[in-house]
Amino acid sequence: MTAIARNGVAVVIGAGDATGGAAAAAFARDGLIAVPVRRNGDQLGPLRDRIVAEGGRCVAVGADARNEAEMIALFDRIEAEIGVVEVLVFNIGANSPMPILEETVRRYTKIWEMCALAGFITGREAARRMVPRGRGTIIFTGATASLRGSAGFAGFSGGKFALRSLAQAMARELGPKGIHVAHSIIDGAIDTDFIASNFPERYALKGEDGILNPEAIAAEYVRLHHQPRSAWTHELDLRPWMEKW
Amino acid sequence: MTAIARNGVAVVIGAGDATGGAAAAAFARDGLIAVPVRRNGDQLGPLRDRIVAEGGRCVAVGADARNEAEMIALFDRIEAEIGVVEVLVFNIGANSPMPILEETVRRYTKIWEMCALAGFITGREAARRMVPRGRGTIIFTGATASLRGSAGFAGFSGGKFALRSLAQAMARELGPKGIHVAHSIIDGAIDTDFIASNFPERYALKGEDGILNPEAIAAEYVRLHHQPRSAWTHELDLRPWMEKW
Amino acid sequence: MTAIARNGVAVVIGAGDATGGAAAAAFARDGLIAVPVRRNGDQLGPLRDRIVAEGGRCVAVGADARNEAEMIALFDRIEAEIGVVEVLVFNIGANSPMPILEETVRRYTKIWEMCALAGFITGREAARRMVPRGRGTIIFTGATASLRGSAGFAGFSGGKFALRSLAQAMARELGPKGIHVAHSIIDGAIDTDFIASNFPERYALKGEDGILNPEAIAAEYVRLHHQPRSAWTHELDLRPWMEKW
Amino acid sequence: MTAIARNGVAVVIGAGDATGGAAAAAFARDGLIAVPVRRNGDQLGPLRDRIVAEGGRCVAVGADARNEAEMIALFDRIEAEIGVVEVLVFNIGANSPMPILEETVRRYTKIWEMCALAGFITGREAARRMVPRGRGTIIFTGATASLRGSAGFAGFSGGKFALRSLAQAMARELGPKGIHVAHSIIDGAIDTDFIASNFPERYALKGEDGILNPEAIAAEYVRLHHQPRSAWTHELDLRPWMEKW
Repeated sequence: MTAIARNGVAVVIGAGDATGGAAAAAFARDGLIAVPVRRNGDQLGPLRDRIVAEGGRCVAVGADARNEAEMIALFDRIEAEIGVVEVLVFNIGANSPMPILEETVRRYTKIWEMCALAGFITGREAARRMVPRGRGTIIFTGATASLRGSAGFAGFSGGKFALRSLAQAMARELGPKGIHVAHSIIDGAIDTDFIASNFPERYALKGEDGILNPEAIAAEYVRLHHQPRSAWTHELDLRPWMEKW
Repeated sequence: MTAIARNGVAVVIGAGDATGGAAAAAFARDGLIAVPVRRNGDQLGPLRDRIVAEGGRCVAVGADARNEAEMIALFDRIEAEIGVVEVLVFNIGANSPMPILEETVRRYTKIWEMCALAGFITGREAARRMVPRGRGTIIFTGATASLRGSAGFAGFSGGKFALRSLAQAMARELGPKGIHVAHSIIDGAIDTDFIASNFPERYALKGEDGILNPEAIAAEYVRLHHQPRSAWTHELDLRPWMEKW
Repeated sequence: MTAIARNGVAVVIGAGDATGGAAAAAFARDGLIAVPVRRNGDQLGPLRDRIVAEGGRCVAVGADARNEAEMIALFDRIEAEIGVVEVLVFNIGANSPMPILEETVRRYTKIWEMCALAGFITGREAARRMVPRGRGTIIFTGATASLRGSAGFAGFSGGKFALRSLAQAMARELGPKGIHVAHSIIDGAIDTDFIASNFPERYALKGEDGILNPEAIAAEYVRLHHQPRSAWTHELDLRPWMEKW
Repeated sequence: MTAIARNGVAVVIGAGDATGGAAAAAFARDGLIAVPVRRNGDQLGPLRDRIVAEGGRCVAVGADARNEAEMIALFDRIEAEIGVVEVLVFNIGANSPMPILEETVRRYTKIWEMCALAGFITGREAARRMVPRGRGTIIFTGATASLRGSAGFAGFSGGKFALRSLAQAMARELGPKGIHVAHSIIDGAIDTDFIASNFPERYALKGEDGILNPEAIAAEYVRLHHQPRSAWTHELDLRPWMEKW
């Protein structure tokens, strides 16, 4: 991670999937320096190349968002060497169903660490730097499981419910300090390799816009960042037009 | 109401207040012909003049949205003489608290007619014309009272709850037919003459963006209309950054 | 309607179906004088006979709960001639789906009048008599449609959402005045002739308790009436053990 | 822990406060063997003595519900030496507010472990034993924070939201297997030493039933256990009559 022009930064935690990558690219197009973060930073090369090819700025980082020390160091270095954190997108998911009788403590805990603990750590670190400046946008990516504990989803909905409550608590506390905290409910399949491989029938709906386009989600996140503070959105849902809900 | 260039139309029901007027003007700037509607059409002159002065097109109409025959005739005439209805914004409110023991059947019914029945009539008439074309956007304006029946608000929350359920039922039925149905939760005071006159302390927060700017709400409505169908929002909230909630 | 021993009264509005009848009988067993009300009072004979055969007291009344004058007269006569209204159960439903494009103003309005307006009129009249005494229980029967506007249910969910908001507004206003206002979410088919005739496959689940027993619902209503005021329930759901939700 | 007459058992996790103790005593009065569990088992003496003095049976246990091995061993020993687990009440709370910028990973994690992880471990262990028998009742104690992430409550609401999603996921999966899973929303101060010491003004309302009586909460839990399976409640709220909400 080397310093580039000091400027506004958009940190995207969980840039491994389509949504995180699209968000990083969208904020780069919007003029911010994208800092996509995922555990295996080596895999961020193609994303960084794409952003740079589009004329954007990007500093890709490999780090574990569940590790407090790593995250504090990351935010410190970003602010010291890259620029001011204007946006945090928290996008880690862990959608992994399991019957309740077979769910393990290890899995249940790990899903929570990925969905909620990492959201708390990175949200708090972003907020600590934003509050003194009185501005900044923090966006948490939620899911259908944020609203409903379905059979087989004790782990995932546990993490996503907790993340939603974090978003609410932060919004109520930090809104009056100038920090815009938002939460999305992504309700439907996203156009990813995972869906293409595992749910081919679903993926076949792509041609008629039946699965969520990551670019469209990213555009919403950029727009949330630009909302005037007289009319902030805390929560919005996003689903394909043909989705059953 | 005389014919002007055939084109896309944005019908705004309840254009009497700041939000409706701002929505009409915003859709006109977006290229549609604004058709603001309120009971006393004479009072729409200033809005029409403003839209035209901005280079927009506007056909102001005086009509009662609770009257089915008037609304059917209105939508028929719009489609025959003005253009295709691409957008409906339903914006009638009737926020009028009353202790439950003193609430009257007349008031309770009238508030429901304004909030919900008029929403049903105009929503259905818009949908009847949009469905055969497989496109169109219908936006209902909700409020804090859409989510919570507070003491003294049996009438208003009754109308707003009913309107929210209408929006959900229409979205679930008409989404797969290509119609985007959305519902906003306006949570906070809006910058209107009413607030300025009746809640001066609240209005004094305007300088620091502490009350909702109608232009910002209208911008969200235009944006909802432009969402790609792979990622539609059904519900979003809007509140000033400093609002308690 | 002739006077019988002056005593506490349980008024059950919408005693035409299984739940209302069971509630009337259950409160009679609990010691109150049951006053079941439905439009066609002649059809209340079997219910009254059943209650009396069980040793209970019952005054069956034919009246239209949507008619304010009739309801005011009814409550006046009850208090003058029968006893003090201790309990109101409002149980009118109107579950009648219709595609939104075919829904009519007449139907949409009538469903709301049955679900919500009648709830407001009878709830207010009961409250007017209970508040000066600082006690009383008002129970509104809700449904799955109270929480969700499903495709084809704009009318029914509109009425049920409005009824739920009425229950909330009344609970928040009248709780501190000693009136217990509660709302049930009935989520599943009830054991009625209607289900038996129209949904025979569903009805066949009765043998394994797969449909709601009206007596069980009624027992909950009696229990709500007996909750100590240090721990009142405002809302509870009721569904068969095997129900999908 | 010595064996006593083999019989049905009610395990109460988090029997340290008033509600857990009252639940243990209430289920003992209902005929089950109460097994109250808290970390410091020594402090359970008075509760056990009270239950026995009332003619009930009680085996008090000191154990940490966050420790999977301890819990598996506990349930194994209960079923081997005491009786069949018919009821689990999970009652651990950790209501401890903190501004988001000052919240620590240690506290955030510990609160989640107490509220949610322990609920998952004990809920799963109870379910593993109940499912083969096709019967049993599992009750999770929630709070206002289960529904709302308030400023300063990221930790507590995170744990309580996660617990609520666990209850939903388990209810949807295990209901059709005969297990009744329920969740309460306790909305108000409970009559405890903590409230008496820290919120004396609140506690002064006790005389007029302005704080929740643990016995009343416990009575609801026993009643949930007795609901016929044709009409099960998954969620209900409980608050004092005068509570603002």
